[in-house]
Amino acid sequence: MFSLWVLLLPCLSLAPLVLAETGLEFPRYDGKDRVIDIDSNNYKKAMKRYNMVCLLYHEAIPDSKEMQKRHQMTEMVLELAAQVLEDKDVGFGMVDSRNDAKVARKLGLEEEGSVYVFKEDRVIEFDGLLAADTLVEFLLDLLEDPVEVIGNALELRAFDRMEEDIRLIGYFRNEDSEHYNAFKEAAEQFHPYIKFFATFEKSVAKELTLKMNEVDFYEPFMEEPVTVPDKPNTEEEIVDFVTEHRRATLRKLRAEDMFETWEDDVEGIHIVAFAEEEDPDGYEFLELLKEVARDNTHQPDLSIIWIDPDDFPLLLPYWEKTFKVDLFKPQIGVVNVTDADSIWLELDEQDLPTAEELEDWIKDVLSGKVNTEDDDDDDDDDDDDD
Amino acid sequence: MFSLWVLLLPCLSLAPLVLAETGLEFPRYDGKDRVIDIDSNNYKKAMKRYNMVCLLYHEAIPDSKEMQKRHQMTEMVLELAAQVLEDKDVGFGMVDSRNDAKVARKLGLEEEGSVYVFKEDRVIEFDGLLAADTLVEFLLDLLEDPVEVIGNALELRAFDRMEEDIRLIGYFRNEDSEHYNAFKEAAEQFHPYIKFFATFEKSVAKELTLKMNEVDFYEPFMEEPVTVPDKPNTEEEIVDFVTEHRRATLRKLRAEDMFETWEDDVEGIHIVAFAEEEDPDGYEFLELLKEVARDNTHQPDLSIIWIDPDDFPLLLPYWEKTFKVDLFKPQIGVVNVTDADSIWLELDEQDLPTAEELEDWIKDVLSGKVNTEDDDDDDDDDDDDD
Repeated sequence: MFSLWVLLLPCLSLAPLVLAETGLEFPRYDGKDRVIDIDSNNYKKAMKRYNMVCLLYHEAIPDSKEMQKRHQMTEMVLELAAQVLEDKDVGFGMVDSRNDAKVARKLGLEEEGSVYVFKEDRVIEFDGLLAADTLVEFLLDLLEDPVEVIGNALELRAFDRMEEDIRLIGYFRNEDSEHYNAFKEAAEQFHPYIKFFATFEKSVAKELTLKMNEVDFYEPFMEEPVTVPDKPNTEEEIVDFVTEHRRATLRKLRAEDMFETWEDDVEGIHIVAFAEEEDPDGYEFLELLKEVARDNTHQPDLSIIWIDPDDFPLLLPYWEKTFKVDLFKPQIGVVNVTDADSIWLELDEQDLPTAEELEDWIKDVLSGKVNTEDDDDDDDDDDDDD
Repeated sequence: MFSLWVLLLPCLSLAPLVLAETGLEFPRYDGKDRVIDIDSNNYKKAMKRYNMVCLLYHEAIPDSKEMQKRHQMTEMVLELAAQVLEDKDVGFGMVDSRNDAKVARKLGLEEEGSVYVFKEDRVIEFDGLLAADTLVEFLLDLLEDPVEVIGNALELRAFDRMEEDIRLIGYFRNEDSEHYNAFKEAAEQFHPYIKFFATFEKSVAKELTLKMNEVDFYEPFMEEPVTVPDKPNTEEEIVDFVTEHRRATLRKLRAEDMFETWEDDVEGIHIVAFAEEEDPDGYEFLELLKEVARDNTHQPDLSIIWIDPDDFPLLLPYWEKTFKVDLFKPQIGVVNVTDADSIWLELDEQDLPTAEELEDWIKDVLSGKVNTEDDDDDDDDDDDDD
């Protein structure tokens, strides 16, 4: 019974207690169980019944009370999401990796603990923060079209402002163009993680210097796009190109795919930069990072993860403890993902390093000269490290 | 006992299950109770013990099991926040409005259900979403200085980008200036809800056309600031000016003060605009709103609340149901805050209204011609409405 109440947590604004006004009531779990316990008998029916189905592939429920309760919590997140999205025709289910191994194989579920979303003939893996709001936002995005159409200069400005995201934009004759369709099919493969835009307007294409049937790929924080070669492009060409260029030189940690990003380490380490964009010092440091990223985007091994502490308040004190840094000011360091051992560049807030100084430090990281094993900045060249 | 587990909810990323890497572990409640049950015997000691104390003033715990559990959930949010912020020397407590009426009076607690933060000689009321991450982010902001110093042109750009927020910026000789101190004292009164900045650099002041000891007030989304009259200003002059100009013509709904904003209705109604900034149509509509707000900022009765659906995924389906609108596209309407009855302007996504058309509609709203009572756009002037 208590489990029902767990669901209130995200809805526990004190609103109901203080608010005479209406209009901001957070959903409160109504006690109705919506999450289906998927098995070999019901999975086909379940998959047919909804416009979109969201399955948690979980490890066999263990005997330990602690693990059982944790599992229950996970179920609660799904129950609240299921209630909130009921009118959107989104179904939710749980697949047990031991009892339902067969079904899992049939559905192609592989990573225990991941959420798999089935939409039409596609399967999308959600490897982000399993909190109700993050999951619901992700699923709502998934309900939108994979391609946004840019119709005028003002809408183009919205596109220009999204420098944090990987974006593709193509110029096509019209909605019926076969090349636009290939583009749309490709977009489906990456939706909602990667943003796809299209325009049918000559004026918009001109501003983007796009020729007919041409597709440009914008890496996050880069000023100039890269054009997908050999237009007009097939779906496969676009998919391959995005897959190859997906890991950005500078990428922002996002709740909706934070674990996927973190797992994508470079030889066991991440270069991590903390910068609060809303803070003048943080903004200044971020601009410096962008400059360095632009100058070094050709380096395949370089991928800096930018974390805005504002996005993860609950993790901030944990990070400060784990990494032994003050996150009220900008920081950049190397984190060993296997043991979270880390080493951080000494930053003077009043006098940030120049782009050159930062690049030298990054070179030392990539060469192994700066590493998490010997925590002192010794000057003897131990280039044998790499 | 179950209560301990409730706390896991925000931390229930599946991370521990799927992640070989470390570095993103969300805090998990350790079972230690940190929230103090405040009473007349312990409150003085509690207030002294911490750098900052965060008290929930709650209604007497009712007999109904449902309300008790809801109360328990609220306590959980505080417990998780207390654990996360332990090293920041932030204390947490609960004050019962019946059993501890005396203490509440002594501490000046008034609104049941509000969280009051005691920092030095100040009391700050938190009237936002009581979720652990929102509360923790709020308290972390509160630990920062109330005035941010802008030292160069790049940091100034960070300031320029914050058009969503009310900002003040002053130019002073140096940190020891008495006028800077008055400014700082004023900032304390509004921290962290309203952002205060200062510069000691002639070059920065020049760009802002600020004279020595002059303070400019920036209303959200306005291009030009208003100068606080009669420089140099006393703390009181600045406080009075901010208090008078606080309600913006266009204001964004924020989790940290969403209920305070919603309670600040204009004669029982809100003009509410939904626009997803990340969406081209939403961005286009938002730009239109800004234009209208700028043209009408002189109207004291006009205050449009902009809601970005991305910020409140859990509320989106509720709003769609309550207001009977499709929030995958921009919307603007009038909401009666007492019954959430509403009426919405017909918008054609492909062909948004002109600023003039939108202004005419807003005039009709302010005149009462468009209202939530007669849901049809009749043309006969019933100006006696207002």
